Amino acid sequence: MADPRFYNLAGPFSVAEIARRTGAVIGGAGKAELVLRDVAPLDAAGPEQLTWLDNRKYLQDFRRTGAGAVFVQPAFAGQAPREATLLLTEQPYRGYAIAAQAFYPEPPPVPGIAPGAVIDPSARLGEGTAVEANAVIGPGVEIGKRCRIGANSVIAAASQLGDDVRVGANVSISHALIGSRVRLYPGARIGQDGFGFALDPQGYVKVPQLGRVIIGDDVEIGANTTIDRGAGPDTVIGAGTMIDNLVQIGHNVQIGRGCVLVSQSGISGSTRLGDYVMIGGQGGLIGHLVIGSGARIAAQAGVMRDVAPGETVVGAPAVPMKEFFRQVAALQRLARRKSE
Amino acid sequence: MADPRFYNLAGPFSVAEIARRTGAVIGGAGKAELVLRDVAPLDAAGPEQLTWLDNRKYLQDFRRTGAGAVFVQPAFAGQAPREATLLLTEQPYRGYAIAAQAFYPEPPPVPGIAPGAVIDPSARLGEGTAVEANAVIGPGVEIGKRCRIGANSVIAAASQLGDDVRVGANVSISHALIGSRVRLYPGARIGQDGFGFALDPQGYVKVPQLGRVIIGDDVEIGANTTIDRGAGPDTVIGAGTMIDNLVQIGHNVQIGRGCVLVSQSGISGSTRLGDYVMIGGQGGLIGHLVIGSGARIAAQAGVMRDVAPGETVVGAPAVPMKEFFRQVAALQRLARRKSE
Amino acid sequence: MADPRFYNLAGPFSVAEIARRTGAVIGGAGKAELVLRDVAPLDAAGPEQLTWLDNRKYLQDFRRTGAGAVFVQPAFAGQAPREATLLLTEQPYRGYAIAAQAFYPEPPPVPGIAPGAVIDPSARLGEGTAVEANAVIGPGVEIGKRCRIGANSVIAAASQLGDDVRVGANVSISHALIGSRVRLYPGARIGQDGFGFALDPQGYVKVPQLGRVIIGDDVEIGANTTIDRGAGPDTVIGAGTMIDNLVQIGHNVQIGRGCVLVSQSGISGSTRLGDYVMIGGQGGLIGHLVIGSGARIAAQAGVMRDVAPGETVVGAPAVPMKEFFRQVAALQRLARRKSE
Repeated sequence: MADPRFYNLAGPFSVAEIARRTGAVIGGAGKAELVLRDVAPLDAAGPEQLTWLDNRKYLQDFRRTGAGAVFVQPAFAGQAPREATLLLTEQPYRGYAIAAQAFYPEPPPVPGIAPGAVIDPSARLGEGTAVEANAVIGPGVEIGKRCRIGANSVIAAASQLGDDVRVGANVSISHALIGSRVRLYPGARIGQDGFGFALDPQGYVKVPQLGRVIIGDDVEIGANTTIDRGAGPDTVIGAGTMIDNLVQIGHNVQIGRGCVLVSQSGISGSTRLGDYVMIGGQGGLIGHLVIGSGARIAAQAGVMRDVAPGETVVGAPAVPMKEFFRQVAALQRLARRKSE
Repeated sequence: MADPRFYNLAGPFSVAEIARRTGAVIGGAGKAELVLRDVAPLDAAGPEQLTWLDNRKYLQDFRRTGAGAVFVQPAFAGQAPREATLLLTEQPYRGYAIAAQAFYPEPPPVPGIAPGAVIDPSARLGEGTAVEANAVIGPGVEIGKRCRIGANSVIAAASQLGDDVRVGANVSISHALIGSRVRLYPGARIGQDGFGFALDPQGYVKVPQLGRVIIGDDVEIGANTTIDRGAGPDTVIGAGTMIDNLVQIGHNVQIGRGCVLVSQSGISGSTRLGDYVMIGGQGGLIGHLVIGSGARIAAQAGVMRDVAPGETVVGAPAVPMKEFFRQVAALQRLARRKSE
Repeated sequence: MADPRFYNLAGPFSVAEIARRTGAVIGGAGKAELVLRDVAPLDAAGPEQLTWLDNRKYLQDFRRTGAGAVFVQPAFAGQAPREATLLLTEQPYRGYAIAAQAFYPEPPPVPGIAPGAVIDPSARLGEGTAVEANAVIGPGVEIGKRCRIGANSVIAAASQLGDDVRVGANVSISHALIGSRVRLYPGARIGQDGFGFALDPQGYVKVPQLGRVIIGDDVEIGANTTIDRGAGPDTVIGAGTMIDNLVQIGHNVQIGRGCVLVSQSGISGSTRLGDYVMIGGQGGLIGHLVIGSGARIAAQAGVMRDVAPGETVVGAPAVPMKEFFRQVAALQRLARRKSE
């Protein structure tokens, strides 16, 4: 059970109720009325707990789990312990996610304005929105309903947030138009000037950054991630895109829908990503590239050319996956031969 | 036109006035008295707008631009549309930068101290300086004229800032002496302890970090960038150096004038850079190196040896550019041969 | 001498007193009663100052140092100037660290609650603890004795801190149980949601993150470093581990005792490190790995497989050090041959 100092357990729920919410089919011991009181890992779950099998690596744990119910793919149903009720689905992890949200629902914001918050009189806050202590909200800011603005965060002049947005602690936002159900984790920096300057005999001349950051619905932006605003065009993050911690997104970058950017990756200015692109941890892309929908950029890849839709690239400079592994193998053989 | 919720448009300016401010020579249609009301991209600019051509890639857009006036190199003048007035200069992007600053001047700070700011009585603030909401300024801090100290930022005891310094939201500064016209973007961390400890049978012994961070005039420091103070010597950032987001600068590092450090690059302790060194995104340098003036470190390079002035190094471990591309080519040939 | 605006010099101390505190043996000129007033680098130290030799590279400076006393390994004693009193120890840098702590002791927190701090009435603060301006402390938080909570930091509901913890400015903490003598540098983010979601036809489904961050005693966490809380299990940082700036630690990661993680390195979810593991700058580890105690991961390494205890791995994909350098050498030879 999750630490009750930090999490409130809801429920219980019957197996039938969980099946209904997730679309899973009841199988195995088939106890539709079994009462489930919590979620737990495969190797720790008991008879009133719900777990899931998502990775063959844990099949051994599955075979001897004491869980009352298990989300599992039909293909593995035959290996379940006799006592276990199964929740059969091709997407057991999704099933678990929905069930865990039911057992541990996120508490809604407690509407109101905490002490020390400084809110410009011209800012507008939607119904049910909570502003935590010492947050600062500038003139003309518009915030939707049921948002939570974290302690010590700063939302500068004229930015807009949709409904049900969660802004973590110590976040900075400026020059941004943000959709609904967006989550910004602590320390995220949205909308500062891009890195733009021109050479000059007397040093560098700053190029005014005149665009915005546009963030679609259902986007997550990780802790200490930085997203610069556009230089003239906007920087755009498409709906449903998931961005991890410490990611850098340069000015004018356009990211499609449902992309996944893993921690410490970086995208240089004016590069455009299609939909459902994935970038592994510490991957880097130079500027002015076009990355097709469904492309996959490996962790630590250094991408210096356009990537076609659906292509997977690896290495630095990044090449198609097959070519990369051919290179690695060739080099290993060569090194072995030379040292014999 | 830039979103008027975020940007105030100034002007208009005549072509003659823009030529005067930038040193460009009027050519093409030559309408010195043409009134310009805004800047805009090549492919969107209209007859009262000003644009620029900086990259051959956009020559096609240049040939059919509807812009009233265009900054362009003399070599391309012949390809301009007949109606376009040209502002001829070898540095069109610099011309654009200066013009864009004229059309969209940065609003000066509104002097005063916002609600919730906590300023030690022994701190001194220059004339015209603005302290935003909930900023914290420690004892003995000295801040120059016309500075802006961002909301929720913290300037710890005894640090000094010159004139016209812009400190973004949620910035932390300690143990620092900062010049004039410096910009610190949101979440920058300046002056915390370097990463120094000695081995000991009982664990690690912290080595007191007794230096400072010295930042020259006209430096920019990106969002969530971290600059540790020196261990005894100082950490030094030379005048006019531009540092992007999420960059790490270790203790005792010395950086010359006019260097450019792109996002997510990192410099380990005690390494010294000359002037006008460039480091690409995610490039890394080990400690105690000497990097000559004008050296260029490629994106993602891993630099483990000194780099001579003017040299370009690529790869990890980093080697001179020619050697790197020879290695890449050799490996590609080898991989191809092996797989035949 | 360190800048007195930032540092308070204590002392003086006799050579005998320093020897007693560090366990060093007095040698060379042997002046046990010599009064030392400060620490200084080898090449700048004078007759009342204490320095150290830790790196053969500086032997030349050692031979002509004007320092009154020098921590040095016995093997180099013969090369000391005649006037220098030696403090002989196999660990001169550790000796310096302890002496520097004596000369420049960290000032204790000044107990009390600064203006603008917002502390929930249900939070408990130990004796001698200082809460700086505009910090925010949530309900049920428990903070030990003699802690310093930095300006504009946020400690969310129910987190616990031991004694003598230093929290820098602009830090965010949630869902965390933190030991004693821990240091969190400015902008560190502890305990936010891990990066967890399941695929779904309608987009991604967020997986509730139900664990905590557990931090052992004597841990340091660098500026703008991010540590996500566990998804169900906890994220654990063992006692005495040192983490540099801008490091990413994913959910469920377990780190042993005394590890050293250099700046901009990243560890993906559920990877486990033994004790005394070292990770160089910008090194990256994929998830679900097991890294044995004493393993060393080179800077910029990309670790995709388990690493055995004591092993050193280099490169991306990371391989044992010998193999890496064989590969580098083979590639260099190949490139040279091809270009002849």
